[in-house]
Amino acid sequence: MTTQCPPAVLNDRLAKLFAPIATELATAESRLRSELQHREPFINELAQHSFRMSGKRLRPALLLLSASACGEVNEAHRTLAPVVEMVHTATLVHDDILDEAVVRRHADTVNARWDNQTSVLLGDYLFTHAFYLASSLDTPLGCRIIGRATNRVCEGELLQTASSGDFHLSRDSYLHIIDAKTAALCACACELGAQFADVDNKTVAAFEAYGTNLGIAFQIADDLLDIVGEEQAAGKSLGTDLTHCKMTLPLIELRDRLAPSERNELQTLCEQPTQENLVRIRDWLEDSGSLARARQTAIDYAGQAVEQIKDLCPSTGDNGTAQRHQAHQSLVELANFVINRSA
Amino acid sequence: MTTQCPPAVLNDRLAKLFAPIATELATAESRLRSELQHREPFINELAQHSFRMSGKRLRPALLLLSASACGEVNEAHRTLAPVVEMVHTATLVHDDILDEAVVRRHADTVNARWDNQTSVLLGDYLFTHAFYLASSLDTPLGCRIIGRATNRVCEGELLQTASSGDFHLSRDSYLHIIDAKTAALCACACELGAQFADVDNKTVAAFEAYGTNLGIAFQIADDLLDIVGEEQAAGKSLGTDLTHCKMTLPLIELRDRLAPSERNELQTLCEQPTQENLVRIRDWLEDSGSLARARQTAIDYAGQAVEQIKDLCPSTGDNGTAQRHQAHQSLVELANFVINRSA
Repeated sequence: MTTQCPPAVLNDRLAKLFAPIATELATAESRLRSELQHREPFINELAQHSFRMSGKRLRPALLLLSASACGEVNEAHRTLAPVVEMVHTATLVHDDILDEAVVRRHADTVNARWDNQTSVLLGDYLFTHAFYLASSLDTPLGCRIIGRATNRVCEGELLQTASSGDFHLSRDSYLHIIDAKTAALCACACELGAQFADVDNKTVAAFEAYGTNLGIAFQIADDLLDIVGEEQAAGKSLGTDLTHCKMTLPLIELRDRLAPSERNELQTLCEQPTQENLVRIRDWLEDSGSLARARQTAIDYAGQAVEQIKDLCPSTGDNGTAQRHQAHQSLVELANFVINRSA
Repeated sequence: MTTQCPPAVLNDRLAKLFAPIATELATAESRLRSELQHREPFINELAQHSFRMSGKRLRPALLLLSASACGEVNEAHRTLAPVVEMVHTATLVHDDILDEAVVRRHADTVNARWDNQTSVLLGDYLFTHAFYLASSLDTPLGCRIIGRATNRVCEGELLQTASSGDFHLSRDSYLHIIDAKTAALCACACELGAQFADVDNKTVAAFEAYGTNLGIAFQIADDLLDIVGEEQAAGKSLGTDLTHCKMTLPLIELRDRLAPSERNELQTLCEQPTQENLVRIRDWLEDSGSLARARQTAIDYAGQAVEQIKDLCPSTGDNGTAQRHQAHQSLVELANFVINRSA
């Protein structure tokens, strides 16, 4: 296994946070690339394309940092790091189908059918390849943790679909959905890192809880970026959630503090997402402090993430312990990063 | 675990073939039903709906018959039988998206988006739940066999998509595609049945090879039914393959025996699938003996399936051996059934 392939898109801040596991992350990247090679040119082209889709490599980094903070990165981690990225990429590929469907309702493109077919199958190919790779370990534990997490991701996505356009979605339901659709895979990555570093169950649970809280903070920040982020930095069109009356935390915070008549007014604006109405909603979110409150919730979850592992920080000492200390420090700082990113 | 739930749609002939494992099949059905129960009503409704989608329960039956022919059905088999059916159902759910896409190009239905989103996620939910269930065994071997087979199913489907509308698809490529998209999961079911009955590797390989050959025969028969079957018996519209210039074995047999000028004529008919042209193609397939040749190929594969396991038939003797003998006999007869079914 070579380490010549640098992780795909790492900005400077992330590169610094991932420094304690930079070599391992490059190895994971290389493994990912080689796993997705296929003798059939069509499948190879698709798989290699998917490999370039995802960007930050957050999930394998969480796995490797957790492993490193608990002890040493070993062969099991090196197998599982590309697995979690492959699963994440599969969900992205299938998410694109969902988004594309919306576009297609308005303009049925010539190759819509081909793309749709291929995207469904490519996502399935990535899911099943990830499971196959995980099953190459000596124990079914990796498959079990990944199977449960990916199943929860699907549950979260299904619940989100079911609640689509529901102005009355409760705060608890929103948090339940993002816990499943986003946090479960972050938690899974951290749990795998700790579990296969052979630490006690309490430590494994602490790293899993770190991942859950970090994932929830990450998703709230993502939902905030949809409203207030800079389009170019985010690399996608903004205000998508508002346009589809998707109730994310800022809107929920606003709605729950309004008098009934104002609440009806907000609902009308949400259900008639003209450009003018979208601007009014954004101003309302800003002026009412709803954006700030949602942001505070993200900060609280990030704080909770750090809280879970703060007592597990090894002291600086010999080389091995220094390495663990640095990885631990990166996880702490990562919690801060995910709520302050611009993309 | 109760056994009160009878398998979904079994015609009399199949019920007779499945008789040696009837109780175990009912147990698998019950397990499938309970595994797909969910506390969230929306997910529960979808999962239960998918549970009613598939019909013959061929794959769990192959697993249980193989297990029974090799020894005794045990707890591992009882876990894996619903797993293979869940994987099969996931592929059916995603196949429906592919088919639906074609319909939608012509008539974009009101709830197209909802259905599309939900179908992608439901298929993913079933895939991941199946893997999670497989990972509950003590060994990763089940996950490994299932992961590899499902990955091959996806490969086959992707290759089929890539060759869609390719009049020049070779006979070998066609066989390679159906080996992957259909036979891999049948082979997987038989392999799991034998593997977890603790027989030697040679016997496991024989049952796997039986499943491969049976699966290829099954798919050729399915492709024949698309051309010559009775629509009501098949429960789906006929001639779909011809309409989409999908090269299945009868067409390939015909094409490969034509002189260049006739071949061009056939290609023109295929590329302009008017009702009149479809009738001309069907008559041509019939008159040229291409349907008969394709049918003979299915018979040959079914014969190969039986060949793989014929020396492994236990003699009738005490009760346990009699049970094994009956299961073995059912597998032999099943090879005949799949090429003579009308749906």
